[in-house]
Amino acid sequence: MNIKEVIKENATLADNYISKALPAADEDFKIIFDAVRYSAESGGKRIRPMLTLEFCRMCGGADEDALLLATALELIHTYSLIHDDLPCMDNDDLRRGMPTNHKVFGEDVATLAGDALLTYAFELIASSNLSDFVKIKAIKALSYNAGIHGMIGGQVMDMLGEKTPLTPDGLYKMNRLKTGCLIKCACLFGLYAAENTTSVKESLYADAEKYADGIGVSFQITDDILDVCGDEKVLGKPIGSDSENGKTTFTTIHTVDEAREIAKKLTSDAKYAIAGYDKSERLIELADFLLSRQS
Amino acid sequence: MNIKEVIKENATLADNYISKALPAADEDFKIIFDAVRYSAESGGKRIRPMLTLEFCRMCGGADEDALLLATALELIHTYSLIHDDLPCMDNDDLRRGMPTNHKVFGEDVATLAGDALLTYAFELIASSNLSDFVKIKAIKALSYNAGIHGMIGGQVMDMLGEKTPLTPDGLYKMNRLKTGCLIKCACLFGLYAAENTTSVKESLYADAEKYADGIGVSFQITDDILDVCGDEKVLGKPIGSDSENGKTTFTTIHTVDEAREIAKKLTSDAKYAIAGYDKSERLIELADFLLSRQS
Repeated sequence: MNIKEVIKENATLADNYISKALPAADEDFKIIFDAVRYSAESGGKRIRPMLTLEFCRMCGGADEDALLLATALELIHTYSLIHDDLPCMDNDDLRRGMPTNHKVFGEDVATLAGDALLTYAFELIASSNLSDFVKIKAIKALSYNAGIHGMIGGQVMDMLGEKTPLTPDGLYKMNRLKTGCLIKCACLFGLYAAENTTSVKESLYADAEKYADGIGVSFQITDDILDVCGDEKVLGKPIGSDSENGKTTFTTIHTVDEAREIAKKLTSDAKYAIAGYDKSERLIELADFLLSRQS
Repeated sequence: MNIKEVIKENATLADNYISKALPAADEDFKIIFDAVRYSAESGGKRIRPMLTLEFCRMCGGADEDALLLATALELIHTYSLIHDDLPCMDNDDLRRGMPTNHKVFGEDVATLAGDALLTYAFELIASSNLSDFVKIKAIKALSYNAGIHGMIGGQVMDMLGEKTPLTPDGLYKMNRLKTGCLIKCACLFGLYAAENTTSVKESLYADAEKYADGIGVSFQITDDILDVCGDEKVLGKPIGSDSENGKTTFTTIHTVDEAREIAKKLTSDAKYAIAGYDKSERLIELADFLLSRQS
């Protein structure tokens, strides 16, 4: 299998697990269950679940345990997209070519669907068959990385940056928080899932974080480059939106060529961090794929 | 001390603990820390923390453990108020006589402050010194009762009820979910907190739930009665808002006298459920206080 096929196979595993894990509907207020399912099942490449799966497999853990934690994290990612799309935030009508949650279900239901997904992520972990030790580690990492000192903080920095341009340091920090924190958490979740049935090499914790750091920032740089010189048809969305919104991005503080070099260097650092471990090939190929992607 | 003094003393304990437990600010995006603190420190009677404290004391547990769990629950309660007040929900400008969160910080920050409080509640429990066993029980109960099958579900039923009037059964169910679930969780949190240092009588779990059920619905009935025949000056808000919004309440499906009788009966059931336990006096007095309150 080439890496594109692996990504697709993992995405299918994640899609199926997520569909089954969503809460059973109560007919007295079915609309919110529909709203939750609408966004949670709307796919995407499922890169975060793949990170969890592949780090878990690398350590000899069980897919089932990885999928549970990957689903909890993906529900958090999903809630953040629903809330980001709201009229009071980015006011987006479309997400992955489909009407956004509030366009279909109304702003009130969309707000509550986001809240429900966020809450349910923790219910899912706490009620699972994982060991208490793994549950606590996972809930700690998820609540921190998705919280005010993590993803939410990054979102606030992004909003503030639309009024007062970010410094280069601020831009790195904003991205580390906004997208990097969940990517790091997804990698760690793979190790935690493995810990449920086996032991994980101590050094891998720090090295998984280095890998996550590298691909996380590189991922964002590639997004910024595609927003300047991507192909709208391949990308599935109009380009140039960042500069229209007056945003500070990696292509406003660097030239496109410089940005590309930085992304390459970060990807190379990411690969180097895990290259010494057995069965790291897929994660290495994934890092390259994320760098070369056109959408 | 009379019960009013006890309530005040407990509220002070909760206020102090909450202030200290809130996340330390990051100066790069201080506004969201201010928004979180603004609502979390805005007080109220702190009835839910009192339930946790008094159930914990009844079992011989430590205040410190009760306050930790009580704070997590109160942060969830706080986030739900911030989101309920948003323009896309109830669109309220005032809460306890103060401008609502979005009026001060903007809708975008208020939405994220709610998300941050919700997420931080779980971080607080997971990162605490409680035993893993207690942490997991607490996170399970909190995520379920605050979630789509609990408080959020009740909120959706309430919204739907503004379009299609609720049946009497629907009204009870909506209230059990919307306010009852967190009240039940607050009582259980007292037992879980006690379990951290001592053992809790098995029968008390079911009896605490009965108590919570009784005071929970009675609490809502009293609210509905006060909305019909309360004193605006004592209440601190205009009366008659429910009927203006065409809401189904306990005073639209019953006369005020009938509603009062039902609330009395429920309070009496609540007291009976725990009367046989040592040191249940304060909780019994609290049930009576909640029934006779004028605000």
